Formats: sequence, structure tokens, C-alpha cells
Amino acid sequence: MKKIRVGVIGAGRIGKIHIENLCYRIPGVEVVGVSEAEAALPATKEWAAQFGITNVVSDPAVLIEDPNIDAIVICSPTNTHADLIIQSATAGKAIFCEKPIANDLERTREALEAVQKAGVKLQVGFNRRFDPNFKRVRELVSSNELGETHIIKITSRDPEPPPAEYVKGSGGIFLDMTIHDFDMARYLAGSEVTEVYARGAVLVDDAIGEAGDFDTAVIVLKFENGAIGVIDNSREAVYGYDQRVEVFGSKGSAVAHNNTPTTVEVSTGEGVFTDKPLYFFLERYMDSFIQELQDFVDAVRGGNEPPVTGDDGLQSLLIAIAATKSAHENRPVKISEVAN
Amino acid sequence: MKKIRVGVIGAGRIGKIHIENLCYRIPGVEVVGVSEAEAALPATKEWAAQFGITNVVSDPAVLIEDPNIDAIVICSPTNTHADLIIQSATAGKAIFCEKPIANDLERTREALEAVQKAGVKLQVGFNRRFDPNFKRVRELVSSNELGETHIIKITSRDPEPPPAEYVKGSGGIFLDMTIHDFDMARYLAGSEVTEVYARGAVLVDDAIGEAGDFDTAVIVLKFENGAIGVIDNSREAVYGYDQRVEVFGSKGSAVAHNNTPTTVEVSTGEGVFTDKPLYFFLERYMDSFIQELQDFVDAVRGGNEPPVTGDDGLQSLLIAIAATKSAHENRPVKISEVAN
Amino acid sequence: MKKIRVGVIGAGRIGKIHIENLCYRIPGVEVVGVSEAEAALPATKEWAAQFGITNVVSDPAVLIEDPNIDAIVICSPTNTHADLIIQSATAGKAIFCEKPIANDLERTREALEAVQKAGVKLQVGFNRRFDPNFKRVRELVSSNELGETHIIKITSRDPEPPPAEYVKGSGGIFLDMTIHDFDMARYLAGSEVTEVYARGAVLVDDAIGEAGDFDTAVIVLKFENGAIGVIDNSREAVYGYDQRVEVFGSKGSAVAHNNTPTTVEVSTGEGVFTDKPLYFFLERYMDSFIQELQDFVDAVRGGNEPPVTGDDGLQSLLIAIAATKSAHENRPVKISEVAN
Amino acid sequence: MKKIRVGVIGAGRIGKIHIENLCYRIPGVEVVGVSEAEAALPATKEWAAQFGITNVVSDPAVLIEDPNIDAIVICSPTNTHADLIIQSATAGKAIFCEKPIANDLERTREALEAVQKAGVKLQVGFNRRFDPNFKRVRELVSSNELGETHIIKITSRDPEPPPAEYVKGSGGIFLDMTIHDFDMARYLAGSEVTEVYARGAVLVDDAIGEAGDFDTAVIVLKFENGAIGVIDNSREAVYGYDQRVEVFGSKGSAVAHNNTPTTVEVSTGEGVFTDKPLYFFLERYMDSFIQELQDFVDAVRGGNEPPVTGDDGLQSLLIAIAATKSAHENRPVKISEVAN
Repeated sequence: MKKIRVGVIGAGRIGKIHIENLCYRIPGVEVVGVSEAEAALPATKEWAAQFGITNVVSDPAVLIEDPNIDAIVICSPTNTHADLIIQSATAGKAIFCEKPIANDLERTREALEAVQKAGVKLQVGFNRRFDPNFKRVRELVSSNELGETHIIKITSRDPEPPPAEYVKGSGGIFLDMTIHDFDMARYLAGSEVTEVYARGAVLVDDAIGEAGDFDTAVIVLKFENGAIGVIDNSREAVYGYDQRVEVFGSKGSAVAHNNTPTTVEVSTGEGVFTDKPLYFFLERYMDSFIQELQDFVDAVRGGNEPPVTGDDGLQSLLIAIAATKSAHENRPVKISEVAN
Repeated sequence: MKKIRVGVIGAGRIGKIHIENLCYRIPGVEVVGVSEAEAALPATKEWAAQFGITNVVSDPAVLIEDPNIDAIVICSPTNTHADLIIQSATAGKAIFCEKPIANDLERTREALEAVQKAGVKLQVGFNRRFDPNFKRVRELVSSNELGETHIIKITSRDPEPPPAEYVKGSGGIFLDMTIHDFDMARYLAGSEVTEVYARGAVLVDDAIGEAGDFDTAVIVLKFENGAIGVIDNSREAVYGYDQRVEVFGSKGSAVAHNNTPTTVEVSTGEGVFTDKPLYFFLERYMDSFIQELQDFVDAVRGGNEPPVTGDDGLQSLLIAIAATKSAHENRPVKISEVAN
Repeated sequence: MKKIRVGVIGAGRIGKIHIENLCYRIPGVEVVGVSEAEAALPATKEWAAQFGITNVVSDPAVLIEDPNIDAIVICSPTNTHADLIIQSATAGKAIFCEKPIANDLERTREALEAVQKAGVKLQVGFNRRFDPNFKRVRELVSSNELGETHIIKITSRDPEPPPAEYVKGSGGIFLDMTIHDFDMARYLAGSEVTEVYARGAVLVDDAIGEAGDFDTAVIVLKFENGAIGVIDNSREAVYGYDQRVEVFGSKGSAVAHNNTPTTVEVSTGEGVFTDKPLYFFLERYMDSFIQELQDFVDAVRGGNEPPVTGDDGLQSLLIAIAATKSAHENRPVKISEVAN
Repeated sequence: MKKIRVGVIGAGRIGKIHIENLCYRIPGVEVVGVSEAEAALPATKEWAAQFGITNVVSDPAVLIEDPNIDAIVICSPTNTHADLIIQSATAGKAIFCEKPIANDLERTREALEAVQKAGVKLQVGFNRRFDPNFKRVRELVSSNELGETHIIKITSRDPEPPPAEYVKGSGGIFLDMTIHDFDMARYLAGSEVTEVYARGAVLVDDAIGEAGDFDTAVIVLKFENGAIGVIDNSREAVYGYDQRVEVFGSKGSAVAHNNTPTTVEVSTGEGVFTDKPLYFFLERYMDSFIQELQDFVDAVRGGNEPPVTGDDGLQSLLIAIAATKSAHENRPVKISEVAN
């Protein structure tokens, strides 16, 4: 079986994880090149050597135009995604791109058009769809074991807030953080969101408020199929990464609880203690990071559609934009209002 | 210790429970009379005899004006509450009244004015505040163990929908069902609600929709202290009465899970099974029904303020009215908008 | 319906609970007399007055011979049980007796013979059979939902050790504490124990060892039906009363977990906390104390067999005696060896 | 960093897992040769090729004597372990050997003497010590958070019985299956077992009984430090691999519950369902298989003692032999009785 040859653009935190998984956990694939910013090049070269990767460059175009490379994995900063997608598509490469495609609609659409025109595959990095818990809930919905979906609830809270500096360039909580939950909501519902009402608050860090953003939010979604969704977010849950979903339907409900490092329960004179949730996304979603790239590699090889498409990226962006507008104007906003 | 002498108006389902609890579970109190509609009088007399209650009448005024009676417990239909409160207050009786005081603001205010003018005690039957789980969560908030409150979540789903006929006269889901959750939200937050956004849907029973009501709803609350609340309701959870709350704060979160008949966990080749939640409010809230009347009796005797006041009844009504308006007009509604 | 008239002998801790339950929680029964030791008579009279009980005497024979009394509830010290059973039986009364009937076989058999000769009903106070959790596990066994029983596990740990002084007169841990677990094992198995191996240790309080007893024990039971039972005991679980059972069979297993005051789960930076088990037997088994007397009263009225018979008392005593012998001689002991 | 070069003897089920882990999950190590029985050689060669392993031989001596190999991982049948250990030790290799070293004491001691004489490292494959749950419980014991250990409980049940044919050559349930639990008991207690009482039964499969073995067992252990241990085993738990431990001490208890594929809880009209435990040891203990080899590789490189020594293998064998004797003679057996 011929190995899929991959070039990875960006070897920051998530890029390194993908590279390690591609080298050690995913059969049938080979990382043949990595690009990283000039300043980080020496450190990246040293790091990559342990995986036997010697082709480490500063210009991503070198990888994109390399005829020996089948697929490009884009892990660079958000503002480079759309351009890199367009270039990779033009070069005929299959593309895996971290979310979001872009923080604005126009750039996102340009990128998707380039992909469509080139007829290449594009998978967007909504990794949570590959989490075993959420996958199981989705299967219960798909198989109709829960009946018609009435209410979808998502709790998504980070263990610690990002620096206010980061927040300024992030596009805001709905584009930066809730966008994962919007994708999860669409995934679980199997139906499109048509309207959003978002209420934001600044309760964790005043600096986030001063940067024009919220750190706490509750969002109500209306789905095409009649179901109601509700998401609650916080930038700081002191007990760790709180990632739960619940689907309530006419035949029953399914709740995905948090994952913990161990199942140990300790009883003392003080009370009964169990583990806190796994600390953050690297711990909680490691399996899903492996699985999403496995599925991407399989799609590239097998010719089937990637499990998360460019349109999935676009739809979540639309919801995030509508939510942002809703929170700032304190009124429900239809997706159709922001889609034009 | 002199016993508090009580007259109970209305011996339907909840009236019978209160009578039985007053006779058997609550020390320091005596049921000296019961009133019930003419038609049900013979059956009520027979039923009351087992508790040694012989004074069973059709006219509540007989009890209200009885100088041997210290307190009136009102369990008759909602549309009689305000008048009975006014009459009982005028007669100088302490009053326990099932929720709501009335389904409209004017009647509610008239009743509260009569109570205030007479200087009598009035307790409203928001029994869930006396549930041990929710009480514990409230204590964690009060003691600041959870820090500043950021998000309050309440799940409240009935096991089966009421008949559409009942729905017509109920005032709608927000006044009939969610009003308990509005009180719970205020109780947990220790802060007033200032704005409401409600989204309703008809997903359980079309007849409910035809009666102009919703059977599924998600409501977002804004609290004076900055916290955000979210309630989700359904008229039909096939697995039973789903009654959970969660308070998320700067120092941690507290979740009250459902109660079950047993703690037994069965593992077979099919899976691991545990009990469904207790079926409905009689099973789930029996302890709270006892405790609320115990506290009422103690307040009557001790001269302290009842734990749930007439103002609590008024505030929840205001939220319910705002929620109804919000759901019908699909926009956030300020409490101040409906309070005048 | 004629009320069953009951005389209660002994108004110590458990006697008071039974009296209160008989007065307030159990329909169809009336406490018409109480006896208590001379020294405690004034306090008992005052206490009994709140239930309207005025017939409080020091001589139990007054109650036993009272022709107006249908049934005797024996809650006096263990060494009086056998005599009081014999006297009550001779007087033709139905008898409810706290466990054990006696700490020696001869007295137990004499009592049972008197009961049989008189043809009266005798129920022994193995209240745990009436606990909803354990009842549910027993039902799963009875209905064959777990298939053939292979292993029965019982964990039974007290929250704090009794004074060494008490231990001296208690008959030892197996007769005093484990006897409840022996009855539970027989109840769950629906089969008799034929052999016992017990290992005891003194790990909690040296004074218990000096009194010739153990405070920690593990007991292995062989059942007639081939199943193996295992019980673990401790006189001190610092986190409270630990009362769990597990039945493992060919079709699956059932585990009854501990009961807790609330279902609240608190997550903080320190960990995830839930309630400790209910503190001790009064909290944990209150429902079962009510239910066992309800069933006794029903048996007296209805003429059916009480749910826990004198033979149940005898069998558990035999196992306890065998366990004591086994622990002291460190060898398995057959029940037949001690039954003669 | 120089890679540790490993030769793996035996590429059956567990051998393949170790090879895959050594190639893909464990840094700093290289599999440079594999041996397998002649008959399976072609298939093994094909399988090994995917990991780039070309040196696949039928004679383990080829690997043992290869000067380029630092360490030997023995995954061949039990009856070959002792000889292979002796040969590897003589050749100066570090040795990882699947449990048990041998099913008889003499061969075990010969192997350990060879290891000691050669001064090489030997790690025995008691992988469960590396399971995160059990490790956490052990840490709670080590750190004295549970106080003095009083009772250790281990539940260990397989999802399906082995063929009776396998049972015949297995050495019996105590040597084949419970030996893992004996090691776990020693690991958790941090104290040696001095006496064993075992009760066995044939409840799952008569053919196992006909082969002279048990399929169900309860074993009581006495530890040097005074604690009591109890293990319950079954060859068939229809709900999957049941692997739990509990340590109860003077300051509290710790329970390690089963692991499940997901955390999803489904509530329907039928009940509340959660996942069955992970099916068998490959699923449940995958992390521990990786960790034990990681620790072995680290020990080989770092010169520190392996975390599970040859003496650990010997001690568990002694307990297993004593348990076998105890079950057959139905009496407690001291370890000192079988150790000579």
C-alpha cells in the first residue's frame, strides 16, 4: 500500500501534535516535509529530527509545490489559512486545515471556491466530532434511538482564560471558542441552525471586556428541524476542561459526561472525591486528533468525502458571526441575515 | 407546646398530601377542618375520617372565620387563591398558599396588599426550595464556596404532558410549569432577574400548540448580579421527572443530579442499567412538601418570616409574564417592561 | 378496620424509633402500652406523652398479660429476649423481636419451641431485608434476571467502633454485627449456608482485641446451591456507614451502592466531591424500620407468615457461631458442626 | 540518545502487541529481530514487514546470541520462559518476560539464580501495576492518605472462559488467572502475603471441573502488616472484563471502578443505561502494556531496577501454589509451608 505523503505547514502546539500522530499513530502516511516561520526554524529542525524528518523549510510554498507531496496539513495562524488553502488547492493537493478557514465570510468563500474549482479534498479541523463520547451520542441520534430531537445542550468551558492580548486578535469568543460548539450542535442535530440568540457577559477577566469581548456566554439556537439548542461557555472553569453534551428527544436522552484521568473514588472523613476532568483539549481530545487525521488520510487514499467539509467550516462561521451580532445587539439574529 | 390549628381549603391531590403530612409527619400542628367542593364532600369526609378529622365543610369561609383556627392552607384551584388569601388575611389568619397567587399581576398585588395591611404571614408553595439537593446547592452559593455565580442551569422536564384541555386554562407553560424554575433560579442566584429571553416550541403534542401554548422551551435569564441563567423545559421526558440544577461560579460548580428509587446498578450482556429518576413530583418532592409545611408551622409559631414570601410569588410571576411575552414576540423582555 | 394493639417492651434508641413509626408512619396499628426499666420510667413517660401513650410501666408482664394487647414488640436488651418471647408466646401474643433471639443456641431453641407450641407469629428484626436497594437486588435474583448465583459480596462497615465495654457483652463481632450480613447473605442467595471460614483482625482498637474480639473481619460462605459468599466488616469506616451488596450470576451482576443525603456533585480546583454515605443505621435504614413493622402488622392482621421468621433468627445465629469458631481456630467450620 | 535494541521471542497475540508498542508508542527503542515457531514464520514475516522488521527467525537463540541486541522480550509459551531467561541471562541480555516465569518453583528459582549470577535486569510482565487506576490507588496507600491498610479487595472476572483444553495445561485458575491479582494485592499492600485461604467452585463450565480446575473462586489473604485481602474471580462475567480494586484503611478507602469505552448515559422509558466495561485485557490494559515496556526500556537505559522484579514473579507464584493447595484441601495454607 502506497503511503500518503504529507507536508505540514506550521509546527506550533497543534502542528507538533499532528506531526507526532502522523508519524507514530496513523498507518499509511508519511510526513515528508514541515514548514515553520524563519525564527523557529532551528528549534523545529531539531525537534523534527527525532521523527526522521529532515525536510524543514521556512517557505510553505516549497511544500505546496513539491510534486512528491499528496496532501497539505495547515496548522499555521488563522490569518494565513485562506491563502494557503487557495495555493494548495491550485497545486492540486488534498488539504486538512485547522479551524477556522478564516474569520470573515469573504475570505472563507474565496477559499472554498478555490477548493471546489480545483476539485481537491478539504477537511476542516473540527476534531471534537471524532471524540468517542460525542460520536456515540451522534450515533444514538442517527439511529433514531432518541426519537425526534427536541433539545440539544452543550457545556463547553475552558480551564483558564487566554491572555487579553490573544483575545484582541481572536475574533471574539464566538468565533474563537464557541465555533467548536456550533459545529458540535450541527453535528449532533443533523440539521442546520436558522437563528441565534446570544447573551455574553464579562465575569472572569475585565481585560477581556476591555478588549471588546465576552468571557461567559449562553447561546440559544433554533434548528431547521424544530429543535432548540443551548450552549453555555466560560473561559475559566477552575476544575478543568468541562466538555459535556446532552441530546434530549422524544424517546429519551443521552448525556456525555466528562472524561477523567482515572476512575478512582476516594472516601474519607471529609467526603467522597473523584478526579477532575482531563485538564484541557490536548488531554481530552488526543484520541480525536488521531482519528480526524486517520479519517483524512483514509479519505485521501480512498477517494471518499472527508468527514468534515469546507461547508461545515462555513456554516459554523455563519453561526458565530450571527451570535456575535446577537450578543452585541441583544436580539435574536437569523443566519440568513448574516449570510449575504 | 400549644398546637397550631390549621384549616385546609381544597382536598384534591396536593391538599390530601398536605393534610396527611400535617397529621402524621409534622409535630406541633393539628388539622381542625377541611373544606372541599360540594360534589366531592362525601368522599372527602370518608377520607378525612382516617385522620380523625370530622369538620369537613363545603364553604371555605367557615374555616376562615373559625376563631379556633390559626392558619389556612390554600390548595384549591388557582383562580380562587387571591380571594381566599384576601379573606384569610382579613380574618387575621396565617396563610400558606399553593403557587401561584394568581395568574395575573393585578390580583396578585391585591392579595399581597391585603396580607400586608393585615400584617399576617403568607407563605407561597414553592416547595422545591426545600428539596435537600437544591438546598445544598443554595448553601454552597450562600457560603461562597462556589465563588461569584456566573451561570445557573436548570433542567426541568415532566414525565408526561397534561391534557390539552388543562393547558388551555393553565396560563401557559411559563406560568404553569416554568414558574417553579423561575423561583428556583432566584433562590439559587440570591439575585433578581432583570431580563428574559424565551424560545418555545411545540414538539410533544400538537394539541398543546393548538391551545396556543408551547411544550418545549429554553429560557435565558439575566440576573442583577451579572450572572446568566438558562432553563430548559419539556412537557414529556419518557424516562421520568428530570429535575437537575447546576450553579457554575468562579471557584467551582455544583450539580444536583436526579434522585432514584434505589442505587442498584445491574450489569448484563446488554449493558449497565440503573434506575430511572423518581417518576413525578409526588415521589421526587415528598420530603420538600413536608419540610415547607414544617417551616410554615414553625414560622407561625415562632413569629419569624416564612421562608418563601408573597414577594417571591410576585417576582416569579413577573418573570413568567415576561417569558411568555418574549416567546411570543421572539425578543428579550425586561422585567421592568411587564412590571408596570 | 380494627387496629392492631401493640405493647412495646423497651424504649431505648430502637424502641423509640419503633414507637414513633408505629404511631406516625404505620396505618392500622395503635401503641397501647410501653414498658421500660424503673430508672428510666419518668423520662419515658414524658416522652411517650407526646404520642398520647399514657400506659407506661416497668413490668413487661403487665403488657404481655394485657388481654387488650394483640402483639408485643421486644426492644429490650438481648439477654431478656428469649424469656420475653416465651412469656409472650404463652400469652398468645404475636411477637416482633429485635435480633438476636439469644446469643446461645439453647435459649434460641427454647424460645422457638415456645412460639411453635403456642402457634403464634414471630418476626425477627432483620430490618435490612426491607431496604429498597437490597430488596431490588433480591428481586433480581428471585426473577432469575441474574441467572444462577455464583458470588455474593457484602460490605458492611460501621462509622465508629462501640466502646470496648460494650464489646465484652456483645457476643463478639460475628454475633453482634456480622449476624445482619449473614441474614442478608441468606436472603440474597435464597439458599442456606453450609460452611464458613472467617478471618478476624484487630486493626481499629486494641481494647477490642483485649476484650477477646475482632474489629475487622473477612468471612467466606459456602452455600448449599454452590454459590460462594464473601463478607467484609470493619468497626470503623471514617467516611460513614458503608453498606453495599453485590450479587454476581451467570447472566449478570447487581450492585447496591451506598445511599447519600443528596445527589450534589461539587467540582473545584481541588477535585470533584460528592456526599459521604448516610452516617449510620438510623439514617440509612429508616425506611426499612418502617417497612418491617408495616409487614409485621400486616402479617398479624392478615394471618400470613411474617417475612422474617424465628428460623431465620436461628440460621443466622448458627452461622455466627460457626464464624466465631472459625476465626478463633483458623479453619473452615461446617454449620452442621455447630448445629448439634 | 542511543536506541535500545530489542529482540522479541514469540509473536502471538501479546507478542504482536508488544512489538507494535515498541515500534510506534515507545521512544528510544528499536525492534531488531523477532522469533516465532517455524509454522507461523511466513505469516509473521509478512506481519513484521509493516514495521520494517526483516530479521524474523525461528530459533530464538539467534536473537539471544546476537551481539547487536541489548534486550530480549519473552512472549513465547510459559513452558519455555525459564530456559529462555537462563539463556538470555547467560548471554548478558536485559530480559522482559511475560508472567509467569514458570509454573513450578524449581524452574522459577533456577531462572532467578541465572539472572542474579549474570547480573542482568529482569522484568516480569505484571502489566496491571501500570494501569493508571491501580497506580493511583497504590499512590494513595504509599502516601498514607488512606492511613493503615485494613482490607484490600480485588474483583477480577474474565468476560469468557478459556477452552477446557487450555485449562488443562494452564496450571489451574490460581496460577493462570489469579496470579495477576496476587501480584496486585502485594503491590497495593506494600506487604507480603503470609497465609492464604482459597475456596474454588465449578459454576461456569463443567468441562473446567472435569479438567481438575475451578472457574469461580474467592481467596482470603493474610498480609504481614496485619491487613486482610480478599479476591473474587470468575472465568465468565457476561457484561465484560470486571477489574476493580478497593483499599480500605484507617483514614478512608479508595475504589477503582471499571473503565468504559465512553461516558455516555442514555435514559429511556426502559431505564438508564451506560457502557459495559471495556471487553477484555487488550482493551482495558493497553495503556499499561505500553507503560510497562516504557519503564523496562528506561530501566535498561538508565541502569535503575525494573519496576517488577523476578522476586515479584516468585512471590506471586508462591501465593498461587498455596492457594491451589488451600482450595484442594479446604484449609488455610501458610506461604512458608509451600516455600520450601
